[in-house]
Amino acid sequence: MSQRIFGPCICIGGMPGIGSVGKVAADYIGTALECHTFQLMVSIGFPPEVPVEDGIARALQVELKAPGGRDDLLILTGDAQPLKPPHTYNLAGEILKALASYEVTDLITLAAYVGSSEERVFGVATDADLALAIEDGGVTLLRDGIVGGLNGILVGLCPSYGMRGVCLLGKTDGERAIDLAAAEHLIGAASDLLGLDISTEVLGWAQEMSKEDEDEEKKRPRRRPEDDRAGYG
Amino acid sequence: MSQRIFGPCICIGGMPGIGSVGKVAADYIGTALECHTFQLMVSIGFPPEVPVEDGIARALQVELKAPGGRDDLLILTGDAQPLKPPHTYNLAGEILKALASYEVTDLITLAAYVGSSEERVFGVATDADLALAIEDGGVTLLRDGIVGGLNGILVGLCPSYGMRGVCLLGKTDGERAIDLAAAEHLIGAASDLLGLDISTEVLGWAQEMSKEDEDEEKKRPRRRPEDDRAGYG
Amino acid sequence: MSQRIFGPCICIGGMPGIGSVGKVAADYIGTALECHTFQLMVSIGFPPEVPVEDGIARALQVELKAPGGRDDLLILTGDAQPLKPPHTYNLAGEILKALASYEVTDLITLAAYVGSSEERVFGVATDADLALAIEDGGVTLLRDGIVGGLNGILVGLCPSYGMRGVCLLGKTDGERAIDLAAAEHLIGAASDLLGLDISTEVLGWAQEMSKEDEDEEKKRPRRRPEDDRAGYG
Amino acid sequence: MSQRIFGPCICIGGMPGIGSVGKVAADYIGTALECHTFQLMVSIGFPPEVPVEDGIARALQVELKAPGGRDDLLILTGDAQPLKPPHTYNLAGEILKALASYEVTDLITLAAYVGSSEERVFGVATDADLALAIEDGGVTLLRDGIVGGLNGILVGLCPSYGMRGVCLLGKTDGERAIDLAAAEHLIGAASDLLGLDISTEVLGWAQEMSKEDEDEEKKRPRRRPEDDRAGYG
Repeated sequence: MSQRIFGPCICIGGMPGIGSVGKVAADYIGTALECHTFQLMVSIGFPPEVPVEDGIARALQVELKAPGGRDDLLILTGDAQPLKPPHTYNLAGEILKALASYEVTDLITLAAYVGSSEERVFGVATDADLALAIEDGGVTLLRDGIVGGLNGILVGLCPSYGMRGVCLLGKTDGERAIDLAAAEHLIGAASDLLGLDISTEVLGWAQEMSKEDEDEEKKRPRRRPEDDRAGYG
Repeated sequence: MSQRIFGPCICIGGMPGIGSVGKVAADYIGTALECHTFQLMVSIGFPPEVPVEDGIARALQVELKAPGGRDDLLILTGDAQPLKPPHTYNLAGEILKALASYEVTDLITLAAYVGSSEERVFGVATDADLALAIEDGGVTLLRDGIVGGLNGILVGLCPSYGMRGVCLLGKTDGERAIDLAAAEHLIGAASDLLGLDISTEVLGWAQEMSKEDEDEEKKRPRRRPEDDRAGYG
Repeated sequence: MSQRIFGPCICIGGMPGIGSVGKVAADYIGTALECHTFQLMVSIGFPPEVPVEDGIARALQVELKAPGGRDDLLILTGDAQPLKPPHTYNLAGEILKALASYEVTDLITLAAYVGSSEERVFGVATDADLALAIEDGGVTLLRDGIVGGLNGILVGLCPSYGMRGVCLLGKTDGERAIDLAAAEHLIGAASDLLGLDISTEVLGWAQEMSKEDEDEEKKRPRRRPEDDRAGYG
Repeated sequence: MSQRIFGPCICIGGMPGIGSVGKVAADYIGTALECHTFQLMVSIGFPPEVPVEDGIARALQVELKAPGGRDDLLILTGDAQPLKPPHTYNLAGEILKALASYEVTDLITLAAYVGSSEERVFGVATDADLALAIEDGGVTLLRDGIVGGLNGILVGLCPSYGMRGVCLLGKTDGERAIDLAAAEHLIGAASDLLGLDISTEVLGWAQEMSKEDEDEEKKRPRRRPEDDRAGYG
């Protein structure tokens, strides 16, 4: 782990958002590092429904995971973002309180950047030293703008909980339900910054997606994954 | 009671929803088993009004009932569902906390399934063993989808309160204010699973409704029951 | 005080609503009995603004008042109702908790009834005995319907706080910002029920309004009182 | 400090609103008096996003500041107002509780007045004595109306926290994102009332803006400052 940049315990998190970029990336890292879930959280701001898979119903939730055999890394993932701003703030506070209790020093959230640019990944940080450090680490800083939703609020509130925060934003065109290429770029950037041994070359998501780009994807209207499922009351 | 499937104390609940399917079924079971109400709950998410019947005004509420002389069964019914998702989660939490305090082991909610299928009743469960058990008990599993509202959230959150959950979904076309036939199918399925001695043959709701189907019901626009009542401020 | 009907300590309340009927009536009773305010309450559900009168700004609030020299009567009035249902429930709970702490036994709220009927005042109660008693006292029972808003919720929740509740509903056409005639009918009905010595004959509001009816009122579009005031941010 | 009008510890606050009038004025006073921030507050009602400036992300927040070397003055500023009324009330309560803990005796909020009048600044106060005192101090009283948003609620709730409140309202046409002239008038009025040594003549905002008025400003449609920034999710 790059101790030059971060403190002794880092959490990487990605919540669902535009293109599911951050969530797919965080889920992949969690799987690649063979993490186990050790804490669940529910927000009263989540959509009022339970997903059913293969006859099993379970509440929408946030998961804190840890790789086996190391105590310097946690993974944060979730099924949904709260529907309304106050619940976003409340859930962020609950998550940060939990992270602080596990002595996390730095939180890195993975999110989406919608816009046109040469860069594939941008970064922001909660203080100037950390911003400089991730820039030295190869991340282009996002100079001006806003980061919305849980991934942004989590980072913005880090200092209130005694932590430092970084948000890595993977460029996406915002047209896909799931942008695997943008997720792959985030996985790569996070692996580099943290010195994680996660190969994304084998994924080939980025190549695959850019190939598919003019093929399959653009033939159909954009759908959310849940549009495929029947609704029950 | 089918101890092969469930634990020593079961709660059956049905909240108002599509076609009032679950509520009518739970109310019927509560009446058939001559239950008495022992706990009332109110949600701040309920509609801001009190219904008046025969000069008597009472707040909208959730009721926990028990049949006389047995301590292995509770019935959960309610006048309304909260209007907004956060209050749905909060009320579900309050109900589950109460059920846990009464040492309920399994919660079975009764809800509606809107769709076209051969099956009249589907089921979901909160773990694979329970799903298999209700499938062995004759319930067709809902493979994929979502269960919305209080009936779904209650089941989805059961594990967080140390309980297991099942949701039985009675097929309805979603066109009626009260779908008695779907409710009858739910009563039958719940009675079978739990070994309850509740005859639904005498009801004949299902036959009656299918007969009425092309007759009375389709002549008029769908109405909610409260449309019949004058509004006061 | 009619001890035949009510317990030893009664609260009469009227919150703003259709035609300001209940609020005007409660304010009048409070003034006629020379009450002093002894408790203020604020709801976070109130409109986010402060009214200014003659250079003085004060928060919107609920007032509990008492007539000098007697301990069997409280008056409840307020500047506004919460904008959203959950805050209506929460404020009702806060008010009822306060009333219970003052050992109020019966709450009578004054509200509006919008509809066509011969009757000028209807009543509902929280139990059958009390309904019968107010009917014996000359109040026509509202047989079926709903009572909306704070005036209804307050009464509906009375039993949860160990109190009994009555709501008196003054018929109004719902077309006026302030229906003085309906308020006068409510003052009369409440005075009769409680044996209060409040003359409404001198008011002549009812006569005046019915005279004005085809004159002034119907010439102008319906306005809320605050429409006369400039808005500041 | 004008001890003739106010108590021993005064807080001047200005939250964002119409024309950013109050916020710009409070920020300017805070800078002119070389204040340091000693307390931050966050509201769950704030917009769910974090602004990024030069690569640094920080949560939207309220700041309490104090000038060095004096204990009779606090400055209250903030990045945003809560989106919904209940959070406005809650944040106002949290701020007032903090101010009371610092033994603030008087709160003066700076806000906008939208309307046509000869006067550039109006005032309201929470009691008649204070209203008379600020009128004697040269402030024209706003006779009738409402003051909306956090600047109004803060003042209206002052008495509930043992403080007195004044709101100074700077006239603006409501057409600009930032009305520097109105802010300058507020700075002048507050300086006069409090005997602060803050020159606004050097600013020349008022002159500059009135000159620009027919020039630059009216050529473009009204924009909020954040419209200039790209959106990220």
